[in-house]
Formats: sequence, C-alpha cells, structure tokens
Amino acid sequence: MNDFATQKLNIDNLIIQALREDITSEDITTNAIIREPKRAKVNLICKEDGILSGLDVYKRVFELIDESAVLTTSFKDGDEVKNGDLIAVLEADVRAVLSGERVALNYLQRMSGVATHTNKIVKMLEGSKTVLLDTRKTTPNNRIFEKYSVKVGGGSNHRYNLSDGILIKDNHIDAAGSITNAVKLAKEYAPFVRKIEVEVENLDMLREALEAGADIIMLDNMSVETMKEAVAIIDGRAQTECSGNVTKEKVKDLIDIGVDFISCGALTHSSPVLDYSMKNLTIV
Amino acid sequence: MNDFATQKLNIDNLIIQALREDITSEDITTNAIIREPKRAKVNLICKEDGILSGLDVYKRVFELIDESAVLTTSFKDGDEVKNGDLIAVLEADVRAVLSGERVALNYLQRMSGVATHTNKIVKMLEGSKTVLLDTRKTTPNNRIFEKYSVKVGGGSNHRYNLSDGILIKDNHIDAAGSITNAVKLAKEYAPFVRKIEVEVENLDMLREALEAGADIIMLDNMSVETMKEAVAIIDGRAQTECSGNVTKEKVKDLIDIGVDFISCGALTHSSPVLDYSMKNLTIV
Amino acid sequence: MNDFATQKLNIDNLIIQALREDITSEDITTNAIIREPKRAKVNLICKEDGILSGLDVYKRVFELIDESAVLTTSFKDGDEVKNGDLIAVLEADVRAVLSGERVALNYLQRMSGVATHTNKIVKMLEGSKTVLLDTRKTTPNNRIFEKYSVKVGGGSNHRYNLSDGILIKDNHIDAAGSITNAVKLAKEYAPFVRKIEVEVENLDMLREALEAGADIIMLDNMSVETMKEAVAIIDGRAQTECSGNVTKEKVKDLIDIGVDFISCGALTHSSPVLDYSMKNLTIV
Amino acid sequence: MNDFATQKLNIDNLIIQALREDITSEDITTNAIIREPKRAKVNLICKEDGILSGLDVYKRVFELIDESAVLTTSFKDGDEVKNGDLIAVLEADVRAVLSGERVALNYLQRMSGVATHTNKIVKMLEGSKTVLLDTRKTTPNNRIFEKYSVKVGGGSNHRYNLSDGILIKDNHIDAAGSITNAVKLAKEYAPFVRKIEVEVENLDMLREALEAGADIIMLDNMSVETMKEAVAIIDGRAQTECSGNVTKEKVKDLIDIGVDFISCGALTHSSPVLDYSMKNLTIV
Amino acid sequence: MNDFATQKLNIDNLIIQALREDITSEDITTNAIIREPKRAKVNLICKEDGILSGLDVYKRVFELIDESAVLTTSFKDGDEVKNGDLIAVLEADVRAVLSGERVALNYLQRMSGVATHTNKIVKMLEGSKTVLLDTRKTTPNNRIFEKYSVKVGGGSNHRYNLSDGILIKDNHIDAAGSITNAVKLAKEYAPFVRKIEVEVENLDMLREALEAGADIIMLDNMSVETMKEAVAIIDGRAQTECSGNVTKEKVKDLIDIGVDFISCGALTHSSPVLDYSMKNLTIV
Amino acid sequence: MNDFATQKLNIDNLIIQALREDITSEDITTNAIIREPKRAKVNLICKEDGILSGLDVYKRVFELIDESAVLTTSFKDGDEVKNGDLIAVLEADVRAVLSGERVALNYLQRMSGVATHTNKIVKMLEGSKTVLLDTRKTTPNNRIFEKYSVKVGGGSNHRYNLSDGILIKDNHIDAAGSITNAVKLAKEYAPFVRKIEVEVENLDMLREALEAGADIIMLDNMSVETMKEAVAIIDGRAQTECSGNVTKEKVKDLIDIGVDFISCGALTHSSPVLDYSMKNLTIV
Repeated sequence: MNDFATQKLNIDNLIIQALREDITSEDITTNAIIREPKRAKVNLICKEDGILSGLDVYKRVFELIDESAVLTTSFKDGDEVKNGDLIAVLEADVRAVLSGERVALNYLQRMSGVATHTNKIVKMLEGSKTVLLDTRKTTPNNRIFEKYSVKVGGGSNHRYNLSDGILIKDNHIDAAGSITNAVKLAKEYAPFVRKIEVEVENLDMLREALEAGADIIMLDNMSVETMKEAVAIIDGRAQTECSGNVTKEKVKDLIDIGVDFISCGALTHSSPVLDYSMKNLTIV
Repeated sequence: MNDFATQKLNIDNLIIQALREDITSEDITTNAIIREPKRAKVNLICKEDGILSGLDVYKRVFELIDESAVLTTSFKDGDEVKNGDLIAVLEADVRAVLSGERVALNYLQRMSGVATHTNKIVKMLEGSKTVLLDTRKTTPNNRIFEKYSVKVGGGSNHRYNLSDGILIKDNHIDAAGSITNAVKLAKEYAPFVRKIEVEVENLDMLREALEAGADIIMLDNMSVETMKEAVAIIDGRAQTECSGNVTKEKVKDLIDIGVDFISCGALTHSSPVLDYSMKNLTIV
Repeated sequence: MNDFATQKLNIDNLIIQALREDITSEDITTNAIIREPKRAKVNLICKEDGILSGLDVYKRVFELIDESAVLTTSFKDGDEVKNGDLIAVLEADVRAVLSGERVALNYLQRMSGVATHTNKIVKMLEGSKTVLLDTRKTTPNNRIFEKYSVKVGGGSNHRYNLSDGILIKDNHIDAAGSITNAVKLAKEYAPFVRKIEVEVENLDMLREALEAGADIIMLDNMSVETMKEAVAIIDGRAQTECSGNVTKEKVKDLIDIGVDFISCGALTHSSPVLDYSMKNLTIV
Repeated sequence: MNDFATQKLNIDNLIIQALREDITSEDITTNAIIREPKRAKVNLICKEDGILSGLDVYKRVFELIDESAVLTTSFKDGDEVKNGDLIAVLEADVRAVLSGERVALNYLQRMSGVATHTNKIVKMLEGSKTVLLDTRKTTPNNRIFEKYSVKVGGGSNHRYNLSDGILIKDNHIDAAGSITNAVKLAKEYAPFVRKIEVEVENLDMLREALEAGADIIMLDNMSVETMKEAVAIIDGRAQTECSGNVTKEKVKDLIDIGVDFISCGALTHSSPVLDYSMKNLTIV
Repeated sequence: MNDFATQKLNIDNLIIQALREDITSEDITTNAIIREPKRAKVNLICKEDGILSGLDVYKRVFELIDESAVLTTSFKDGDEVKNGDLIAVLEADVRAVLSGERVALNYLQRMSGVATHTNKIVKMLEGSKTVLLDTRKTTPNNRIFEKYSVKVGGGSNHRYNLSDGILIKDNHIDAAGSITNAVKLAKEYAPFVRKIEVEVENLDMLREALEAGADIIMLDNMSVETMKEAVAIIDGRAQTECSGNVTKEKVKDLIDIGVDFISCGALTHSSPVLDYSMKNLTIV
Repeated sequence: MNDFATQKLNIDNLIIQALREDITSEDITTNAIIREPKRAKVNLICKEDGILSGLDVYKRVFELIDESAVLTTSFKDGDEVKNGDLIAVLEADVRAVLSGERVALNYLQRMSGVATHTNKIVKMLEGSKTVLLDTRKTTPNNRIFEKYSVKVGGGSNHRYNLSDGILIKDNHIDAAGSITNAVKLAKEYAPFVRKIEVEVENLDMLREALEAGADIIMLDNMSVETMKEAVAIIDGRAQTECSGNVTKEKVKDLIDIGVDFISCGALTHSSPVLDYSMKNLTIV
C-alpha cells in the first residue's frame, strides 16, 4: 500500500469519495469556528491492544485535503500496539485536521480491526503448514483496504476478484453437467496463467475434480474425518483449501488435517474495529 | 431506500462501483462455463435469526446487470427472519445471477447485521422515552446503507454528514477560546435551519453551553450520577444526548437517566453480518 | 471557500469541468500563436462598482492549469471595488493565462454580481433584526459559488439542499392530510438535529403549524397587514421567515413587520454580473 | 436538444449532477411525509410573459428520477407564453415530482429567461441583415443550455468553445508581434475547416487583418461612425461582427451600420429568469 | 462480450466516452439537416475478406444513443466475411444512425482487423499443440476489445493485466539478485491461485527457473535450436512460451519446437483494420 | 501537447485510465519483488528507424505515478530516430518505472508509428501545394494522441470532431432532398465561424455544391481525370479535398491534380507501431 501506483490509481479516489460522503457541502462546525488557515498538531492515540494497519491511509486522508500535512511516527503497519500508545503526531492546517478526522479514523480503526482478528487466527496456526486466507466476503468498495489488512495481520489473499482466478462451484457444475465438463470448459476458455480451483462436497466429487485436472480443491463444509480422508486421496496432486464457517474454536481441529489453506470470511465481514482517537489539538 | 431519487442518485453508482470491484475484467469462471444467455432461478435463504435489511439493494444489484431481473418475495425490510426462511426467489439471466451473487450478498448480510444489532438495543429501550442514534463512525462509502439499516432496526439517525448539523466538540472549544464564543460564531455562520449541539464533559461546561443557547447537549463519557444531575440542570431547556462506548450492559442503566438520545458507534462499525445464501440454481 | 476541504472536494472538480466545457479539445488560437512555454503577467481590472466575490476561484482556475500560477492582490472577498480598480496581478504561463481567462472571469463576474445584489438589500435592512436569506433557486451546478457569494454580500444561507433541512410546503400538507400530521411524520422520520419549517398561507394554517411544534414558520405571499398579525400570534414561539417575490421596493415595508428572516430567490437567479477584464498582458 | 445523442452524451449527466447538488443525501421532507410509491399529477404554470425554452430539459429531470414520468403539453420551445398559461401536466411518482421540482424549474426558468431576452433584441433587428450572436460569457457548466436558448429566442451561436473557432485578440497579436504574423501562424496551425476571426480596434488594424486574410473581422468597441467606415473598407471581403456592451438602446444605431453580426454577452450572463411554478399536485 | 456484466461494467462506459470524443458538443451537420426524430434503415456492408469481430459493440453504440435501435443480422462474431457481404441492417432514429456511424465503424473495423490477423496465424498453427497468445501491447483503453478479438480469431489470452498473473522479467531478476530469490519472493507474496512465469534468455537461467518452481517458462528471443534444447530440458515440468517478434515467416519454424504457447504483440499493436461501410440510408 | 491545459484537461485522465486498465488491482510481480521505495534509472532505446512522437506522454505516464520522475533527453517530437538510438534516460521510483513501463511504451510506439507513416506520405507531397489530412477514423479514446502525431509527422488535421466542422455527405443530401437544400439548412443552423464542406461524387453534384456556396468540396472516389476536370471547374471558388483509399502508390498521381488537401484514414487506423524498449534498469 506504500507503492505509488496503488495509491494513485486505487486508493486516492476511494478516500476522496469517503471525504465527500462525510463532508458533503462543507464542515460547517469547523468553518464557523475557524475562519482562517492555522497550523495545528494533534496526537493519534491507540485505545485498545491489537495490530496496527492503515497508517498510510490515515496519513493520506489529510494529505489529500492539505498537501503540506506531515505525520511523525515510529510505528508501521503490522506492529503490535497497546491501549494508550502514542502512535503518531499529525501536523496540518487545523481545518484539514478537524474535517478529515472522522474519515481517517474510520479507515484506521477498521483496517486495524481486520489485522488484529487475522493475527489471532494466524497465531493459532503457527507451526503448521496451513496458510490462512481471506475471501471475497468484503465490504463493498473497501476490498483493497481489507485484503491488505489481512496480509498485515499475517494472512494471505485468496483471489482478488472474479477475473483473476477460476473457482468452479456447485452452480457452475450444475450448469456444465459435470465437474469434468466444467473443468474442460474452463481450460478451454482460459488456458493460460490462472489456476483452476474446484469446490467439492464429498469424496466422489473430489475424485472427479482430481481426474479432471484441478489445480486446487476446496473442501466445503466437510467433517474433520472426511477432510483427512480427502487429503490422503489427493496426496499432493493438488493444493487443498478448507472452507466454511471457520471459527477460532474450529481452527485447532483443522491444523491436524494438513490442508494447505483455510479460508475465513469473518476476517473481512465481521471483525470489530480497533479503537483509536485524536487528542490534544494545539495551534502551532 | 425505495424512493426513486435516492436509488438513482445515491445507490446505483455505489452498486456499480462494487460490481466493478468484484468482477473487474470479467467473471471468467461463469463466462467459461456458460457461453450463451439462459434464464435461471435461485433461492435466497436466510441462515441466521435477525432483522432483514437491504432487500431492495439485493434486487437492484441484479437489475443493474440484467434489467429484466425479477425478485419474488413476501418479505420486506424490517421483518424478522429466521434461519432457514426462504426469503425470495430471484429470476434473471444465469450469468447475471452468478456474477452478481457475491456483491448482492455482501450488501444484504452487512445491512441485515446492522439492523439486527440495532434492533436488540432498541428492544432494551422499549417503554422509555430514549431514542437510539447512530454516529458518523460508518464504513467509508457505505454510510447510506448503514444509516438506513439503523432506521430499519428501529433506531434513528444522528446528523448525516458534517454539513447538515453543527456539533461543537472539545477541539472546537479550544480553538474558539470558550463554549460561549464557539456557539456565538456558529450562530453567526449558520443562523438558519440547523440546530446547534455542544459536547460537554462536566457540569460547568454544561451550564455554559445552556447559557450560550445550545439546542442539544451531548453528555460525553459521564457517570450515570453526573448525567442524572445534568438532566436535572437542563430541565427541558435543551435536548440531551448520551454518548461514549454504549454497550448492551450499560443501556439498562442509561434508561433511568431520562436522556432524549443515546448514540452508539458500534451499530455501524462493529456489527457482525447476518448470514444468507443463494441455493438451488435452476435453468428455467 | 478558502478552506482546503471545500476547495479539494467541491470546487476543483467544478472548475475542471468548466474548463473542459470551454477549452474542449484545445485552445487552437492560443496554441497556434504561442508554441512554447513563456511566463506572462496580466492585470485584473474592475469595470463596475460593487462587491468583490470569487477571487479564490479566479486564482484557482489558473492554478489548476499551471500550478506555478501566482496572484498578487491587496483585495479580498467582501471588499468594495470601484470601476477602474486594479484588483490583482496574475503571473503564470502565457498559454495558461489565455486559455483560462474566460472561465476565470465567468466565475468572478457572476459571483461578484450576486454579492453586489445581496449587499444592496442587506444595506436596506441595516438597523433591523431581520436577516436576508437566499433560496434553492440557484443556477444548476453553481450553488456552492452562489450561496457563498450571498454570505460575502452580507446575507445568510437558507438550507443548502433537500437533506439538511425540513420544509413542509402545500403539496406535502395535501399529501399528509394536514399540517399536524405532516409535522408528526417529519418528527418521527428525522427526530434529530434538523429544524422543522412549515410554509403557511393564512392565519389558520399558522395556528395549526405552531400547535404542531414547527420550529420555523414561513409566511408565504401574505400582505404586510397579515404578516404583522402573524408575528403577533407567533409571539416568539417559532422563528419567522417572509417569502415571495421580495424586491427592493418591498423590503422597506417588510422591515417594520419584525420577521426574523426574509428570503429572496432573485439574489441567485437574476443578479446581473459585475464586469471585470484582464488587460496589459506582458511576457516576463 | 431533442436529438438523442445530445441528450445522452451532454445533457443527462449535467441534470444528474444538478439533482445530486440539490437532493444530496435524500429529500427528507418528502421521504418523511410520503412513505410508499404513489402516482401524482401536477400543473406547470407560466407566471410571466415570454418565450418558452427548456421544456425537454424540464421533462428529462423527472424521467431521470422516474423513467415512467409523462409530460402532456401542446407547447414547444420557442412558443410565446403568457402569465397564467397552463404549459403542461406532469404525471409521475409523487416523490419524483416533489424531489425533482426545484431542479426542473431552475433549468426551465433560466433557459426561458435567456430565450426571452434574446428574442427582444432579435425583434429589434427584424428587417435588417444583422444576425444576433451570443458569446462565451456563459454560466460555467450551463453553456449547452444557454447557447440552445439563444437559438430558441431567434439568435445564432458564435463559436461554442476554444477549439471550434479561431479568434485572434489583442493579447494574441501582442504575443505574435503583428496581426499579419498571428494570422499566418493560425493558418499554418489549423489550415482546414475553421474560419479565422480577428478582433480590431481601429482602421489600421482592420486593414492589416484584411490583408492577412481574415475570414471575419470583429469591430471591438468602435464608435458608430468608425464602424460605418470599417464596413465600407471591408466591402464584402470578410464578414463583420460588432462587439462590446450591446444594449437595447444601442441596437437601433447598430442596424444602420450593416454589420453581419452583433454579439452580446448579456444574453447569457445577465438575463433575468422567466417565472414558472408547479401547482395543484394531486394523487391519481 | 455478450454477457450483461461485461457490457454494463466494462463496455458501455468506454463506448460513451468514444461517442463524446467524436460528437463533443453536438453533431452539427446532422442536427442542421434533420430537425425532428425520424426512423431510418441502413445497410452494413463488408468491403474486405476477413473474420468478423465486434458486432455486439457495433450494435451497442447505437443502442446507447437510441435505446430502440434494432440490428438484424444472420452473422455472428467469428464468422468469415467477404467483400460485398451485407452483414446487417440497422434500424434506428436517423440522427442516432448518422451521429453514431463513425464510432461504431471504428470499433468494428479495428476488432475485425485483430481477429483477421490472429486467424491467419492460428491457421498456420493448426495440427500442432501450440496455442497462440496475445500480449499486453494493446492500444490504451481498448484492451477489452482487442483481447476479445484475439479469442474471436482463434487465439487465447495471456494475462489480462498486471494483477492477474506473475511474470518475472530481467529487471525483476536484477532487483531480486537472482531468479531463485525472485520466485521465492513471489510465492511468499501471492501464494494462492496465480501461476508464476519466468522469462529466461539462456539455458542456465532456464535451469534455475525450473529449480525455483516456475509454473511457466518464457523463452525470450532464443534461436530455434536453443528453444528445442530448452523444451527437452524442461521435459514437461513447466509450460513453455515462446516470445519475441513472432512473424508469419517465423511461425513455421516454431511449430516443430513443440512449445505450449507462442505470444505475439503484433496481433494487437499492428493489425490493419478490416474495412466496412454503411450504405443506402433510407427513411422508413 | 506541451501546453498545460491540454495535458491537465485532456491527457492526464486518459493516461490514468490506461494505467488502471493495465495495473488494475496492483502490479503483483513488482510488489512481490520490491517491497520498499528505491530510486532507479533506465534507458529508453529506439529499435526501428522513424519519427519520434509521444515523448511528453511517455514522461507523463511516470510523473502521474511518481511526481518526482525525471526524463533526461536531447530528443523532441518530430525528430528522426534510428534503430539503436538512446532516446532518453528515465529516473524514478523503481516500482513506478516497472509498473508504468507497458503503458508508456504502448503510447510512445503507437504515436511514433502514426508520425512515421504520415511523414512518409508527406515527403512524397513535398514540392506540391497539396496538404495531407487525417480523418475521424481514429482509435476510440485515442484521437488526441493520433491527431497530434499526424501533425508531428508533418500532416494537418481535418476537423477534430462532429461539432467543429460541417461536412455534408450523401446521406445528409438524401435526407435534405438536394445539396442546395442541405447547404441552406446548414447555413441557417450554424451561420457563424464554421466552414461548410460538401462531399460530391460527380461533376453535376460538384456544380450544385459550388452554386450553393460550399467553402470546401470533397471529391470522393473520383478518377484522376475527373478530379482534374473538377479542379478546373472549381477554379479557386472553393477549397478542394481528395478522399478515398489514399495509398502511397496513388499519391504520386494525385499531386498533379492540384487539390488543396488529400485525406487518408490509414494514417490513424492502420499504421504499424514503431518499436522501442526500456533496458538496463539500475538502482541508484
């Protein structure tokens, strides 16, 4: 998220849109109280323990309003933060600070919430070969921030969108008549670059998917026993992904199965935020 | 959300943007498996108990891809739904169904999650005069969906953005020198239509805000005892809002204080989703 | 209009759009005559007496084409200007000057025209408690410039748009069955922050609106006599706004009535422009 | 303005933008009072004598909110309208009617104002060969509506923007060293399709422009006497345009000079609106 | 290209933009000659032998101006067409036909040109296992049309953009220090879904890439002899792509090598157009 | 193309769009290999003889990603370049260089291809009075780059779009009933600034067009003999344009005819690219 291209092409316009959503015509409270440009400083304080994510986005919100905004910090995304930590000091035009505050915090809190949630599950998987993945169950128009935060928390990203990976699900199989035919059609349509993943619900489907040449098998809502059997059948001929309501309680059981990937929608759709606040504004 | 203007001006473009985020170049899986237009039906099933919100948005996602999409349902936003309920049957082009599925569910699940969370707290406030409010702690570029869902769940909306209400906070007071001066500047700047709210942290600030002519007093992070005293001092001369980490546990204590409003950021920033799925796709 | 957020979020894109409207493919005259970058200076001269408004917008037009543009001036918005005054000296790339000239003047002339017109009526109201308001009868896609210029001229702004204030008019009353019901529905729908204004045409409607709890009463197209009676009946229980073809001639009569606000559509829909020109371009 | 391409490519987006400017988040008054779709009728009444312009735009505002909106009328742009005339009956969803009313009237009033003003001057020119032109002194982001209304009122359009016509002014002449050189550079840069117009302030400049091969000569701020002499010198070798603070009083004197065109900025920058209102809304 | 999602999300906006580029303010010729809506028919004639591509886009151009446009045809994309063939009959508003003609033909001619060029090389590869691929050397803002036309002509698509496939080139290898390290970093960064391709220039690099676990090896600018050796070394452990100034002459030699893919930039960057015209417009 | 207004209003947004098309979510290869900002240098090498066009656009691509990008060069658009020439050295953030490379080259190659093709025909016309023109047969959403490159190659531009010139073709004539009527309608609709061109297919049509007052006559697909006769008939009363499948072979014959303009669609629709590459990237 600190590469220029991502920021200019994919981040800036979303932040601008969020600022328009929040400020709309003008910030009347701020404009009423402060009539002329003045430089101000304010502290960014963490109010809960967790993993920091989104500091570049936080800073960028203010830069997009006042290009002379400066953020001074010794933290970076991925760091553990504690309740009470002084994360950074922001210096910018006082009206830019006040008008941008809510959008900047909304991004930072949400991104850190995702990273913190992800990190908890990643820690439970430590020592195993299993990699934690996110899903496409992201908040509309926030995917880039949420997928990034999963990586910050130590997880990995599943496909980013519907065009950069093939995942054949039950409905596709019905439409194609069989797994065999679906995989054949997929290979014909996109023979190059992309891997082909097939979602299976039982061992017969699994065998057919393997035979058809799937690169990745998603084991969907199977019991632990069945998954173990599945992994044995696959025997390294394809990568394996376990999916379906993955919770902290279930993660322990999943480690022993030896799947390559566990995917978890809750990382992006149900993580609570991590609380921060901006305090002690002073005119400089 | 069922009025034309809101849909055409404020909803459609956000949905289109979310579809672009998810589909990007093309849905290669669907386009590989299905090469020609075909009409399909699919069931929308609820998988958790809660309050339905976002059915118009769910439908609109498919209409924006295939304008002949039809949704048949006997439910409407605000209805209680149960795990296993058949909420609706969607009929549309099969590729529109498959390509739009994730975005449609992402909206529906999130909106229903907010409505369900809100409704739980609203039920605890039943019988009191206290109204539950949301805040501006919403997900960037999703405010319209989240604020709407708060209303669907029985809550009310605080100001929509920084231009439709004046709320003077500690930083504004510092910048203006005093509450008295801040309120004076605000009345001078925006004399018409908008009410003026002042955030106070103690009873001295409260008295000054009242004197200055605040329409609404926000009691920020006060103890229950202090809030009771505050309400007695105000004595109907202004409306009262209680704010600050409102949780289900604390709500019970707050009822007796007799404030007009309780505002709760968690409604929009930390509600878990309500689960739905689309099943039994058939070609018709 | 000199706060960063308003400029970046609400002004820049409108100016860019106006420049595209005027320049379209390219400024062929300028590009034909001048083939390479050269720095130029030009004077901004006022050609009519009035009130200056829009100097920041004038400058911004050139900055958006050539970020090194500099405007030197001792004037600011709200100042009285006289025919022949040298308002400012602009220095920028010569092609930026020539290509931006018309758009910059179009904004400046129109904004100063609104401020000048407003100021004339404001001066007539001096000494009274009555505040002059604008309306929503603004030029499409120019509201922010026109409402700002009303303030520069000494007036105040009525609601900015349909979402930041409730104003119940005759058609709403018909639809709701009665004023009482309409106000009740409005309070139920938007209980927080926004004031409720009701437009009334006679004293019976006025009494019903007061009873229903309107915060502001708009006296629409009433005679001076009736308005005086209305103000007596209201007796401070609501604010009062006088509306309907307010002209300079009528303003004198309205002062004595003692209404809080007079609203005047002509400020924004029919003000003639104030003339300026750019002269004495020299290459530096 | 009734051709599809202009509407789809150049009108619809401006109207949508104007609706967003006016409605912003939602029309809270209308949405509070009316909770479900209902069909309504309303009359469009003219309140001043003048020339109708903008009826397609008026209709389009409602169609863009509610595509089933229908406008019944026996009038068309260019018709004379009288105070009290029932211009049209609009039938659409009641909320679409109420939420779109202001934007629709803002366009119609402004466009009819321009057409009416233009028509008054055109009538004074009747019988002469002189054609009335507009200028680029239009309201930002409203040029298409204003230039169209000039035509509706009987005038003609000068160049639409900086890329569809070459007009060499004093500053260009200074930069090029001489009229001769400026015309030469222009012919070299854009040899095809576009005519070349030169602005001259005295008879020497006029002779040089003629010699250089100008297609059109603009006589800028010359006395009537000098213009007569100029026309005699030109003697049909170029078209002639008279420019500079053209008012109704001056038009009479200009007719006798025999110029081909008179251009008048006030048509678009200072025409007062023509008043209309929407009355008698009924649910159908 | 006939799926709704691709059209609505990725095609329509590009066509609208192209129409704005060509029509700009208005089609003055058409609007001058034809003042009222009239229905017209016109023939689409092919003027060169080749492969048809872009008929949906051709039709869509007119639908986006006039939604009642109808195209009657017995051809579909991929069909062989001959000089003189009547490809289709278009019926629409006469001004929509005339104003959309150039943009519609510009798309159709270019897309058919790409398909025709592709098809010639595909035919030379018939009987071999080698698949023809395009590259990212496409015309800016036309990639979707050009990549689609490569498929219509019988070719396949390489990665669509920089985010849906990993391709490690010489510069990446330099930056990473070695192929081994670059592949390791790539697997760490994007462990899921995407295949990893490495560009190699000699057999040492090839061996290192194989060892590092590349899924695809691109043989860049190698001699036929070296490529044969390379294929033997790889021996099915990775897919192979031959790249670098592929021409019709060289294709014959490449077949025998037995690579999986040949990629050819000229398909999209240097295909001449296939000529069509619209003739015999009649009012119906 | 080096004037600020064209760049800011018409170029930057197209480049940004092209970068989004190519980079989409993120450049995963580059971001995987390089994790932190680093400054790099790279050479731009020409790989074919031709005319350089697009160097400003090439540079701008990188500036829009990394505003500190610097291009050092002694070449400028219009220069002859040779295979092997070091055209320029680019210095910028290494990820900006790698992520922008393809878009920058795609523009430069295509623009230089058009300039090179144009220049070859221009050289054949040297010594004659005939000027080479482009057409509206440009690549959608690339017209500004292609028309500019025609000028760089020594050609001139025909009208830029449908609103800046009147060209009456066979279909318009049919619709109007006659050339005479069509020209009359055009003069009535757009009396000012724009020239009127008429396309004719035989000498009768030519005579009617002349009589009607056409400023330019397009001789469409006529034999050399007929064109000579046509030029004699016109005898300087209008400008002449020869059109219809102009190829290098035919150009020689056309010179003698003495037309003012020859227009050639192939310049923009079928020029092959001129090859460049970026080599020797080093971290600085």
